[in-house]
Amino acid sequence: MPVSPSPIGLIGFGAFGRLVAEHLAPHAGLRIHDPFVTPAAFAAAGIAPCTLAEAAACPVVILATPVSGLAEVVRAIAPHLQPGALVLDVGSVKVRPAAIMRAGLPAGIDIVATHPLFGPQSARDGLSGLKIAVCPVRGTRARRVGAFLRRALGLTVILTTPEDHDREAAAVQGLTHLIAKVLVAMEPLPTRMTTRSFDLVMQAVGMVRHDAPEVYHAIERENPYAAEVRRRFFDLAARMDGELGEGVQVEEKVLLDA
Amino acid sequence: MPVSPSPIGLIGFGAFGRLVAEHLAPHAGLRIHDPFVTPAAFAAAGIAPCTLAEAAACPVVILATPVSGLAEVVRAIAPHLQPGALVLDVGSVKVRPAAIMRAGLPAGIDIVATHPLFGPQSARDGLSGLKIAVCPVRGTRARRVGAFLRRALGLTVILTTPEDHDREAAAVQGLTHLIAKVLVAMEPLPTRMTTRSFDLVMQAVGMVRHDAPEVYHAIERENPYAAEVRRRFFDLAARMDGELGEGVQVEEKVLLDA
Repeated sequence: MPVSPSPIGLIGFGAFGRLVAEHLAPHAGLRIHDPFVTPAAFAAAGIAPCTLAEAAACPVVILATPVSGLAEVVRAIAPHLQPGALVLDVGSVKVRPAAIMRAGLPAGIDIVATHPLFGPQSARDGLSGLKIAVCPVRGTRARRVGAFLRRALGLTVILTTPEDHDREAAAVQGLTHLIAKVLVAMEPLPTRMTTRSFDLVMQAVGMVRHDAPEVYHAIERENPYAAEVRRRFFDLAARMDGELGEGVQVEEKVLLDA
Repeated sequence: MPVSPSPIGLIGFGAFGRLVAEHLAPHAGLRIHDPFVTPAAFAAAGIAPCTLAEAAACPVVILATPVSGLAEVVRAIAPHLQPGALVLDVGSVKVRPAAIMRAGLPAGIDIVATHPLFGPQSARDGLSGLKIAVCPVRGTRARRVGAFLRRALGLTVILTTPEDHDREAAAVQGLTHLIAKVLVAMEPLPTRMTTRSFDLVMQAVGMVRHDAPEVYHAIERENPYAAEVRRRFFDLAARMDGELGEGVQVEEKVLLDA
């Protein structure tokens, strides 16, 4: 993804695809395809959409579609890719997407799996200093991609493997989204008598509460380590709850014995 | 607690008592008593401790002791209080402390129950803008106390009842501390591949993780509404978990049928 006049194909123009387009537009021409976005919505964004074949024929192709639909997209673009092209995804998990792309994209196509650790909410004030995980999957261009992301977009690049990524993300995103989901379900929550720490937790909730349902599902269901993290969270929470319950009983017993 | 030359008695010189002393010292003379703090620790803080009787004989007496020990402290100070004195507490819950003080302090003693919604961590950069709940329990001095806290210390004062306080605090503090306790038990958690929202959650954890165990116990066990909040949190969390589990099974079934 070097700064070059050659266009970048972007498949997917949802919330994250739009963020990608906004930040890449100054650096390259974009050929954007999304059959689920109306021509009117493209027009409103000042963008002329193109066909799947046109987007997929670019030297660099970014897949900004839900992880759950990635296999289908990979199948669809494969016939249109140019030899030597570079394909990247931006999904919230990396083990499955890397496997899907490795299996579904022709040999000779380079693959870099990425996970921008931010969304439209956290990128509201710009990308500078935000993090992105970059995993080499096939070919040798991951470092050049990382250098571009660092230099041109100001991102902090974490070069890692899909497995290491998913293990950390299972805790980072799995816990944040799980906690946010539960707190949103408990609303209305107090807004007056709040502490700084509660305000911070609710600020975190505000950053993920409007994420597309696909993001939550990718994080909790398509990350092979997420179920284990949830299990540990619930087991520890149940133990805390049990200790508090027992404590009350012990206290009552002491009172009765006194 | 008007700005006056008359001294303020402070019973309790733990983490929170020290914070109280630091911020009240510019406004009044302090007579501090804490049998659990060594003379050397008092000396290190530049303070000459005094007896329980001396501290309790002040026109204004602040109780900065754990909620669990409040009844004992109230019994101990009662004989030394001056008629017309004002007694305040600073505990994290208010229904029980208000009842204990109302029952244990002689008629003619005014009582204001307070809960500073901050601790040594969140007050590190000063008190300005932090919140304090103020509950009138006996007498008519709660508004004057509130005015002093606003004017002299820059606090945002929330005048409320012990019941309303505990209902809100059960969610605000109960949830924050419960989540923090579970996350701390899950450590080590990732520090590298983190999102903004996860960073905010961990910042919140950092603010309460060093709270005295008594604070956690007061919040979770001495707040009459805390168990119900925990119950809702766990029920909703279990439902989310169930939904995610079912989703996976449905997905597997579709694959098998395909």
